[in-house]
Amino acid sequence: MLGGYAHRIARIDLTSGKVEYFAPDPKDLEMYVGGRGLGVKYVFENGPQVDPFSPDNLLAIMNGPLSGTRAKMSGRLAVVTKSPLTGTVTDSHMGGWTAAKLKWAGFDGLLIKGASEKPVYLLVKDGEVTLHDASDLWGKTTHEVHRILRERHGEEADVMAIGPAGENRVRFANWINNDERAAGRGGTGAVAGSKRLKAIVVVGKQEHMPQPKDPELWREADRLASATINDPKNVTAPKKGGLSLYGTNVLMNITNVMGALPTFNAQHTCIDGVQTISGEYIREHRLVKDNTCHACPVACKKMVEVHINGKTIRFESYEYESAWALGAHAGHTDTDWTGYAIYLCNAYGMDTIEAGNAIAVLMEATEKGYYTGEDGLRFGDKEGEIRILEAIALRKGVGDMLAEGPARFAKAIGHPEISLEVKGQSIPAYDPRGLKGMGIAYATSNRGACHLRAYTPASEILGVPYKTDPLAWEGKGKLTKLFQDLSAFTDSLDLCKFSQFAEGPEEYAKQLAAYWGRPVSPEEILQIGERIYNLERYYNNLAGWAEGSDYLPKRFLEEPSDCAGSKGQRAELDLMLEEYYRERGWEKGVVPRAKLAELGILSQAADD
Amino acid sequence: MLGGYAHRIARIDLTSGKVEYFAPDPKDLEMYVGGRGLGVKYVFENGPQVDPFSPDNLLAIMNGPLSGTRAKMSGRLAVVTKSPLTGTVTDSHMGGWTAAKLKWAGFDGLLIKGASEKPVYLLVKDGEVTLHDASDLWGKTTHEVHRILRERHGEEADVMAIGPAGENRVRFANWINNDERAAGRGGTGAVAGSKRLKAIVVVGKQEHMPQPKDPELWREADRLASATINDPKNVTAPKKGGLSLYGTNVLMNITNVMGALPTFNAQHTCIDGVQTISGEYIREHRLVKDNTCHACPVACKKMVEVHINGKTIRFESYEYESAWALGAHAGHTDTDWTGYAIYLCNAYGMDTIEAGNAIAVLMEATEKGYYTGEDGLRFGDKEGEIRILEAIALRKGVGDMLAEGPARFAKAIGHPEISLEVKGQSIPAYDPRGLKGMGIAYATSNRGACHLRAYTPASEILGVPYKTDPLAWEGKGKLTKLFQDLSAFTDSLDLCKFSQFAEGPEEYAKQLAAYWGRPVSPEEILQIGERIYNLERYYNNLAGWAEGSDYLPKRFLEEPSDCAGSKGQRAELDLMLEEYYRERGWEKGVVPRAKLAELGILSQAADD
Repeated sequence: MLGGYAHRIARIDLTSGKVEYFAPDPKDLEMYVGGRGLGVKYVFENGPQVDPFSPDNLLAIMNGPLSGTRAKMSGRLAVVTKSPLTGTVTDSHMGGWTAAKLKWAGFDGLLIKGASEKPVYLLVKDGEVTLHDASDLWGKTTHEVHRILRERHGEEADVMAIGPAGENRVRFANWINNDERAAGRGGTGAVAGSKRLKAIVVVGKQEHMPQPKDPELWREADRLASATINDPKNVTAPKKGGLSLYGTNVLMNITNVMGALPTFNAQHTCIDGVQTISGEYIREHRLVKDNTCHACPVACKKMVEVHINGKTIRFESYEYESAWALGAHAGHTDTDWTGYAIYLCNAYGMDTIEAGNAIAVLMEATEKGYYTGEDGLRFGDKEGEIRILEAIALRKGVGDMLAEGPARFAKAIGHPEISLEVKGQSIPAYDPRGLKGMGIAYATSNRGACHLRAYTPASEILGVPYKTDPLAWEGKGKLTKLFQDLSAFTDSLDLCKFSQFAEGPEEYAKQLAAYWGRPVSPEEILQIGERIYNLERYYNNLAGWAEGSDYLPKRFLEEPSDCAGSKGQRAELDLMLEEYYRERGWEKGVVPRAKLAELGILSQAADD
Repeated sequence: MLGGYAHRIARIDLTSGKVEYFAPDPKDLEMYVGGRGLGVKYVFENGPQVDPFSPDNLLAIMNGPLSGTRAKMSGRLAVVTKSPLTGTVTDSHMGGWTAAKLKWAGFDGLLIKGASEKPVYLLVKDGEVTLHDASDLWGKTTHEVHRILRERHGEEADVMAIGPAGENRVRFANWINNDERAAGRGGTGAVAGSKRLKAIVVVGKQEHMPQPKDPELWREADRLASATINDPKNVTAPKKGGLSLYGTNVLMNITNVMGALPTFNAQHTCIDGVQTISGEYIREHRLVKDNTCHACPVACKKMVEVHINGKTIRFESYEYESAWALGAHAGHTDTDWTGYAIYLCNAYGMDTIEAGNAIAVLMEATEKGYYTGEDGLRFGDKEGEIRILEAIALRKGVGDMLAEGPARFAKAIGHPEISLEVKGQSIPAYDPRGLKGMGIAYATSNRGACHLRAYTPASEILGVPYKTDPLAWEGKGKLTKLFQDLSAFTDSLDLCKFSQFAEGPEEYAKQLAAYWGRPVSPEEILQIGERIYNLERYYNNLAGWAEGSDYLPKRFLEEPSDCAGSKGQRAELDLMLEEYYRERGWEKGVVPRAKLAELGILSQAADD
C-alpha cells in the first residue's frame, strides 16, 4: 500500500444526505497521485457534459500524499470541478491548514454531488462526514461563518466557507478558509452554492500525521528540500528573497518597470504611482504581521490594516494579483481602497482577479460609451468600485450581468473585445506583451487564462530553471509545456507552487518516494504531470473546447505595448502555438488518441 | 367515474427511460378539470423552487375532458411547466388535432421529467408511450421534423416538435405541431430542449372518441353551443365575424385606429401604412386557404404565401400577434418580410411575440446608443431582423443574450426600462394606454404579460360580455378577475379562447355536465377557474414573485400615447390594482391563507 494516504475518500450525496466511504484505487494513486490529478480523474469520470450548476456536477475537495506531513510547503488543498465560468475542468488551491487537517481527519478527499434542499455544512472529523443544517449561516459573509463555526466546533476546527457570492452563483465565487486563504479561480464556490453547501468544517489532530514508508530516505529528501528552499546562495530561494519579506506583491514594482503590468484594462502596460500598492510600501506602512501555512518556512502571507472613512479594516492578504486587479487594472493605486476592495471580495467570497477584471471591463465600457446604464463606472472611481463589487455579489443592477463573468458581460453589450479572457476566464497580472511566455501559457491553460498552470515569469524574471528573455517568443512553447507538466504534478502532491523556485523533479521525486515507499524517478514525475495535463485537455475537448480554443485577446495581438520595458511589443501567439503543439504532440489543441494511449489514459476512456 | 377522460396519464422519466401509468385522482379532476388546471396542479406538486432547466422540472402535456369530442372549438392542448423565461408557472396552448389525438391514443396527459442523455422523441399510441432515438432529428427545424416523423409513423400521426431554438434553450422557445400551431409563450420548448426531448408523436383514431355520459343533455348543450357560435344576429359570434374571414389579424386596423397598437417598441401607439400587414390585406393578396382545428366551424387559420428574394414561402398563420411583433413593433409594415420572419420563428421554434420584442428592444437600444455592438439594428431594418432572429435561435453574437429574453438583455445593457415586460415576459399587441383593461390584465397575469389570461378587449372592443370604455380604468379590475377565472376554466376543458366571444358559463357548464355525467352549475365553473388562478398565484408567491410583482413597464405609466384614439393617455395601474386586489381578496398580490382554504387549496398545500 502506498504511503502518505489516509486511503479513505467520502462520497457525499447532498440530495439524499447519504455518505459513503471508499479506498481510492491504488492504480489511480500511482497514475494521478492525489490533489489536482486525482480530482481531475474523478471529475472526468463524472462526465464532461454535465452542467456546472446541475446537482450532477461533482465537487472534489482533495489533498495529496504529502499533505499533513512535514514536507515543506505542503499546505495546499485542491478544489476540482467543472467550472461555471469556463465550462472546462478547473482546479483551484488554497493554502493554510485545511489540507493537512483533512488528512489528519482521516481523508484523502471529499467527493460531493447532489444538491441539498436546505443549506448545509459538512463536519469532517475522525474519519466520518456528517451533514448539518446551515440555514442560520445562509446570507452570511465568509468571515462571519468562520467565526460562528469555530465557536461551535472549537478553535482547532478549520473552516472553509462560501460567501453570498457563492450562494448567488456568481460565476467566479470562491472558497475562503479561516486563514483567509482562497481557492480562488474558476467559480468553485458557485458550484457549492448551487448545491446549497455553505461550509466544510474539518477537525483533525496532528497526531494523525502520516509517517514516511522510508524514514531514512525521507530525512535525506527533507534535508535536500529544506536546503534548496533556504539556500543562502540562491537568490530565488523562496525563504530568502522578496517573497518572504514582501509576499507575492514583491512583483508589483518589477512588472511595472518591465511594461508587463496590464493597467486600465490592459489599455496600458504600466501605471504612474504604482509604488503605493507595492509589497514594499505595504510592508512599511500597513503590515500587521507575517503569516504562513502548514509546514512552510517562507511566510509569504501578510496580514495588513487599511483605513477607510475612519474605520480600520484588518485582513490577509494584500497579494500581488489582488492589488493589481482591484487597483492598477482599475486605473488607480490607492493603498486603502484597493485593500478594502480585496477585503470585500474575501468577505463575499469572490475571486479578486475575476472581480477586478469585471470592474475594469465595466470601466472601459463606460468610458467608451459601450455601457450607458446609470450604474456605469470610470477608471479610478474607487468608491464606485466598492459599490459595484457589492452589486456583483448580490446580483444587483449591472452586477447581475457582471456576476456571469466579465467575458459574458462584454459579449452581452456587443464588445467581446474588451474582455481580456481565454476560455471565459480573465487574465491575471502579467501582460503577455511584456512577458511573452505568459501569452502561450494563458492561451493553452486548461482552466482558462492563468499564470499558475505554467509560471513562465520564473524563467523570464528569475531565471528558474533557466533564464529566458521576457521579450523573446522562441522557446516559450517548450518552456510552457515543461512548467505545465511540473505544476500539474506539484498541484497533485499538493505542494505550493513557490516551491518550484527552489525545488525541481529531483527533490519532488525523493520526497514522494520516501512517502510512497517505492522508487520514483524525476522522469516519472514529469510523465504523471503530462498525463494529468492531457486528461484535462481531453476533458475540455469532450466538453466542447476543441480546435481554436487556445487563443489570446485581440488587444495583446494588435495593440502594441505603450510603456518602457516592452514598448511597441505585441504577443506572437501563432508562432508560440506552433512550437507548443509540436512539443505536446497535439493537433490544433486537440489530444490525439495516440497520445492518450501513450499516457495510459485511453484504456480507461475507451468508451467515450 | 367522471366522463370525458381516458383516465390514464403517463409519467415519463427521461433520465431512466421508464414510463409508468396512473389514473388521475377523481378529486383532482373535479377540482381542476384537466388541461391547464390539472397541469398546474401537478406542476405545483412538483415544487415551486425547481430550476426550470433542471431535470427535476416537470413538463406536463395535457388535454381536457372535452378534448377529442365533438364539442365545438375543443382542439386545444395545454403545455404546463415552470417557465425559464419568467420563473412562474406557465401554460401555453396549441390548436390543431394534437389534443384530440392524445385522447384517442388513450391519454389525459403526459408528465415528463428527467433528462435524456441522447436526443429522444416520444411515440404515444394505443395507451402506451415509448421512447425513440432522435439523434438524427437534433438540429433540424420543426418543419423538417414533422415531415420526417410523419413519413415514419404515417400521415395519421400528429407531431409536435421543438426546433433549434428549443435545443439551444432560447428562453422563449416553443412547440410547433404539424399544422404549424404553436404552444407559443413562456419557453416550454426550451424546457423540452433541456431534457433533450425533440418531439412527441401522437397516433390516435377517432373511433376512440369519448362519448358523453348524458347523451340527451349533450345534444341540448351542443345545440346551444353551435347556435351561439354561429348566431347570425350576434356580430361577435366567432363564425360570423371577421375572425372567420380574416383570422385574428382582423384586429390590426382596429387597434391602430384606437391608438392601442404598440409600435417602434411602444414608443408610439400606431403606425403609418399598417394596412399592408392587416388581415384584410393578407386575405386579398396572400391567402392560400382557410384552415381550422379539430371540431371548429370557425376556421380562423390562414395559410398564406409570401415572396422573398424570388422565393415563395408558404406557411400558416399570419396571426395578429405575430404580424404586430415582427412588423409594426419593429417599425415596419412590410407584408413579405414580416411573413418571412413569422415563418422563420416557426421553423426555429420561437415565440413570435417574444422574438418580436427582442428585435424591437435591440432596435431601440441601437438607436439610442445603448447598444453599440456591430450587430446592432435600426427600426425598419427588415433584413437585419431576419439575421438577428437566426442569431437568437443559434445563440450567435447579440442573439445569445437576446435568447435569454429581451428583459434580461435590456437589464444587461443597463436599460431595463426599454423592455416592455411583466415578470420577465414581454407584452403582446395591445397598448394599455389605448386599452386600459390590458394594463391590469398584463400586470396581474400569472404567466407574465399576456392578453390571453383576461382578454379585456372582448369587452372594450366587442362588448362581450358587456361593453366597457377602452379608455376608462374603472371596473377593469373586476372585469379582469372575471375573465381570468373564466379563461382558467376554459383552458382546462380545454376549449379555444375565442369560444368566449359567444359562449359563457351557462354553455360551458352544460357541455361539461353532459360529459361528466353529473350536474355542473355556472357558479361551479367560475369557482374552478378562481381556484386554478389562485393556485397559480400561490405557486408564484412561493417561487419568489410576491409583493410588488404586479407591475407595468414605466413607459406605459409615464409616456403618454401620441396617436389618435388614445392621445395623451397613460395607464392608471395603481387605481386598477386596488380594485383588482379587492375583488380577488389578495394582499398586494399575495394569496392569503384564508383564500387558499376557501377554495380548497390549503388542505393539499398545508405543508408548504
